[in-house]
Amino acid sequence: MNPFSSKPAASVASLGEQKLLTAIRRWLGRSAPLAPAGMGDDCAVLPAPRGRRTSLVTVDPVIYGEHFDDDVPPRDAGAKLLKRNLSDIAAMGGRPTAAVIALALDPRTRLDWLEAFYRGLAAVARAHDLPIVGGDIATHRGGLVATLTLIGETTSARALTRTGAQAGDFIAVTGALGGSLPSRHHCRFTPRLAEGQWLVRRPEVTAMLDLSDGLAKDIHALTPPKSRPLIFGDLIPRRASADLRAALTDGEDYELLFAVRGGAPAAHRLLAAWRRAFPRVPLTVIGQFAPRSVSATGALDISAYVGFEHLKS
Amino acid sequence: MNPFSSKPAASVASLGEQKLLTAIRRWLGRSAPLAPAGMGDDCAVLPAPRGRRTSLVTVDPVIYGEHFDDDVPPRDAGAKLLKRNLSDIAAMGGRPTAAVIALALDPRTRLDWLEAFYRGLAAVARAHDLPIVGGDIATHRGGLVATLTLIGETTSARALTRTGAQAGDFIAVTGALGGSLPSRHHCRFTPRLAEGQWLVRRPEVTAMLDLSDGLAKDIHALTPPKSRPLIFGDLIPRRASADLRAALTDGEDYELLFAVRGGAPAAHRLLAAWRRAFPRVPLTVIGQFAPRSVSATGALDISAYVGFEHLKS
Repeated sequence: MNPFSSKPAASVASLGEQKLLTAIRRWLGRSAPLAPAGMGDDCAVLPAPRGRRTSLVTVDPVIYGEHFDDDVPPRDAGAKLLKRNLSDIAAMGGRPTAAVIALALDPRTRLDWLEAFYRGLAAVARAHDLPIVGGDIATHRGGLVATLTLIGETTSARALTRTGAQAGDFIAVTGALGGSLPSRHHCRFTPRLAEGQWLVRRPEVTAMLDLSDGLAKDIHALTPPKSRPLIFGDLIPRRASADLRAALTDGEDYELLFAVRGGAPAAHRLLAAWRRAFPRVPLTVIGQFAPRSVSATGALDISAYVGFEHLKS
Repeated sequence: MNPFSSKPAASVASLGEQKLLTAIRRWLGRSAPLAPAGMGDDCAVLPAPRGRRTSLVTVDPVIYGEHFDDDVPPRDAGAKLLKRNLSDIAAMGGRPTAAVIALALDPRTRLDWLEAFYRGLAAVARAHDLPIVGGDIATHRGGLVATLTLIGETTSARALTRTGAQAGDFIAVTGALGGSLPSRHHCRFTPRLAEGQWLVRRPEVTAMLDLSDGLAKDIHALTPPKSRPLIFGDLIPRRASADLRAALTDGEDYELLFAVRGGAPAAHRLLAAWRRAFPRVPLTVIGQFAPRSVSATGALDISAYVGFEHLKS
């Protein structure tokens, strides 16, 4: 059977990313445990025997024509491959321990391109004392797909997952949002590992993720049941080149978005401690989760903004 | 920079697989530890604190047009993705514990194709009680690449690596070789997990790998320094459709090749115990490692046969 169809209704594009993920879980059946032990968070959390660090696992590729193009220097493309995955480990408050890389590439791939790609990746690996322990090379005529699987471990008694926020929790975000592509932030960002490891030790932080598909889309994964996010447009920290729509819908921010319990006093204490720990990294409270019954006067209508959608035809 | 070159001399094809792997290690520098903790064996072996099982990690993709085509039912392609990786865990004498899957696919990918792919994979996962704990879906226009990373653990005090054989050790192989593609063995094989776990507990077994690129190529990875393999063509177990050249050079056998210490008496004892443990799985002694100075009368000239070469242009 040819895997591709010319009929849009028969293809994965008709389902879109979220429904496809739901379908894949159904197809996998009992082989697909729920998050955090399975799909659905930034990393899978593999439970460990008593007294041992819990393992984290995540996988992300970079694909020629999707995650980088001829305008991206190969050093940056290689660095991006590892940093995308480091950002997922950061979102759990973890640290990376080992990586493997599967490279699918056309035999015409330039050696000098590939050397720069690996050297860019190696520089990031060295900065995090991370060994690249294995990999695979396979022929892929006409394509270039590099897939990195990153293994890590928790740095605290818990991993910080996407679930755990409650109505009333404040919503905070690191850095600035939007305009990742034109500003080249998408390959020049620094994964928020130290920040994530600091946040996981603050008990008032109840849930966290890293922003990859835009605030307007990713916020839903953090929103507690029967609640909605009240986010105020004026509060959202924006990259210089980004308007409000860009800050809400551009992908590849790689910033941490998290929930803070304990009202304004707790949020103020957290912000004060943050400024001492990370004086150069902005941290901004942009809103609050509220019961759906609460009126949203002044808050953004998030549903009017659509984040990055994978698998569009 | 465009990653592809029209000049063969500037491309990875000019280097070939082995030299490219060497180059990648050089580019990665001290981020690339040596096997077994790093690249170069069937799995990476991640050391664990005292009293804990050592972790194993391996990664292999299936790529449309390379590892499967329109003639392979999608169920078989999905099963093959997991089984290729299980075979690598088997080659260390390990057991699988968790898997993640990165899917890079064209938006035109048929839903019914993908469902059958995942259901085929899930059936293998269930048979091994293996959870699929995470993954990623990304757009890859014109392509279909599924990459599975498999994490496992040792089942014994040691992992069985490719290094450890000595001159004098016998060479043994499970099953039958050659003709994997025409016989559909390449997607219908059973990974030798139980056999690998049995062999790792036999101290006379000194080194092991799984055959993926043909005996004539893969034997080199098992051959001790200053030695050569004396292999006798008449002894090589062949699939019904395979002649001697096919048994030596066809890829995708997914059989275990290993070295046995202790001469003929040890080999006989091993064979007798094997027949009781695995009465339906052939095990054959096909030769012996010998010092390079020993004359090879009657043995095959392995250098006259070339196994599967990746990255040919």
